[in-house]
Amino acid sequence: MPKTMIPGYTYGSDTLPRSPIGLEELDRLKATVMFTSADEEALRMAGDVLEDQVGQVLDVWYGFVADHPHLLAYFSTPDGKPVQEYLDRVRSRFGQWILDTCRRPYDQSWLDYQEEIALRHTHEKKNTADGAGAVDNIPLRYVIAFIYPITATVRPFLAAKGHSAEQVEAMHQAWFKAVALQAALWAHPYVRDGDW
Amino acid sequence: MPKTMIPGYTYGSDTLPRSPIGLEELDRLKATVMFTSADEEALRMAGDVLEDQVGQVLDVWYGFVADHPHLLAYFSTPDGKPVQEYLDRVRSRFGQWILDTCRRPYDQSWLDYQEEIALRHTHEKKNTADGAGAVDNIPLRYVIAFIYPITATVRPFLAAKGHSAEQVEAMHQAWFKAVALQAALWAHPYVRDGDW
Ligand code: HEM
Ligand code: HEM
Repeated sequence: MPKTMIPGYTYGSDTLPRSPIGLEELDRLKATVMFTSADEEALRMAGDVLEDQVGQVLDVWYGFVADHPHLLAYFSTPDGKPVQEYLDRVRSRFGQWILDTCRRPYDQSWLDYQEEIALRHTHEKKNTADGAGAVDNIPLRYVIAFIYPITATVRPFLAAKGHSAEQVEAMHQAWFKAVALQAALWAHPYVRDGDW
Repeated sequence: MPKTMIPGYTYGSDTLPRSPIGLEELDRLKATVMFTSADEEALRMAGDVLEDQVGQVLDVWYGFVADHPHLLAYFSTPDGKPVQEYLDRVRSRFGQWILDTCRRPYDQSWLDYQEEIALRHTHEKKNTADGAGAVDNIPLRYVIAFIYPITATVRPFLAAKGHSAEQVEAMHQAWFKAVALQAALWAHPYVRDGDW
């Protein structure tokens, strides 16, 4: 599916506000998660490995959410009915995010969309991209905790295309760093002024 | 060093406030990081493996902090002088935390001390345990980002005592879950009301 066809996906759009976080801070965060150019290369390889498995990765993640009522709640109305159209629309953007994490340069446009994704998890913008009637905020604690399943469950997919143990490990560590980095960025709108 | 000898370490103390986070929420967070009783067992094993290597683990972590001015800043005065006594005192508590993460039951007393550790990273309580004159707040973004180095650098130590590849992997995954769980708990005092 070409990018422009994904409903609600606004990466690189002219109307997207600039992130308040700049490239200098991004460099400090990259250093904190030990992210180097070798990780960039490993992510490029991961993009090629994951490209035709994105649907299966999403099946695992959506299965995990569906199995946990306290998570499914955020794709559901306040009285607890899952909103199927919302689940479907977010799924396409989530799939694109996997490839973006692997292939996009982590530049100012990328930071701008990180801030947008962050806001879409909060009161400020949740539901707006899809006109959904779901619960209107995802608590930050689950976003941070999710670093684990989003990292661990990807490993078998990285190993599924016959790469060496060393290559799989390099792709997996780079993925872990990229997820931790994004969770740190996404905390921004949740945090009290000056404490992010 | 017996626990009572660690300056500023107040785990289980009567004067410690109760955490606003309870066991029911802890269960949801555990489920979110996929933490099970098998992980508890793996952490017990990790405690035995790490016990006599704690000093070396801390050397790696302190080396990492010392190598990054934007991290060393939080152990330093506002004008940038590292406070050696503060570094030393925190180091003893950090060592004890490694063993607590492996050996303590994750019960209400544990939650109470998690909230205390969280507060010690914020304006509210930073420097107070040691009467230190350092910068008085650690930004949440670095706490989240730190999940990576705190997880990745432990692996060689888990592998250093001749356990099978499977046992090392189990210990390492349990450790990763425990660190992500704690980072999620520590976000609590940083976050706007209702958004944690
Ligand atoms: C590491 C943690 C997480 C990652 C990597 C992640 C990733 C994503 C991505 C890529 C999107 C789509 C962004 C876009 O609009 O282009 C998204 C949206 C969404 N995520 Fe997350 N997410 C995380 C945590 C969570 C958690 C814990 C929940 C709770 C169930 C959740 C529920 C949602 C929902 C409901 C949306 C749609 C938001 C909207 O209304 O636009 N996410 N997430
Ligand atoms: C996963 C992330 C982190 C973990 C697991 C961690 C762990 C700990 C532990 C166990 C303590 C001692 C708690 C006690 O008083 O008993 C502590 C205190 C401290 N940590 Fe962290 N920490 C993390 C992130 C950071 C970051 C990013 C920095 C920035 C350099 C930092 C700087 C400090 C400082 C300065 C103290 C002393 C606080 C005080 O004044 O009491 N920590 N940390």
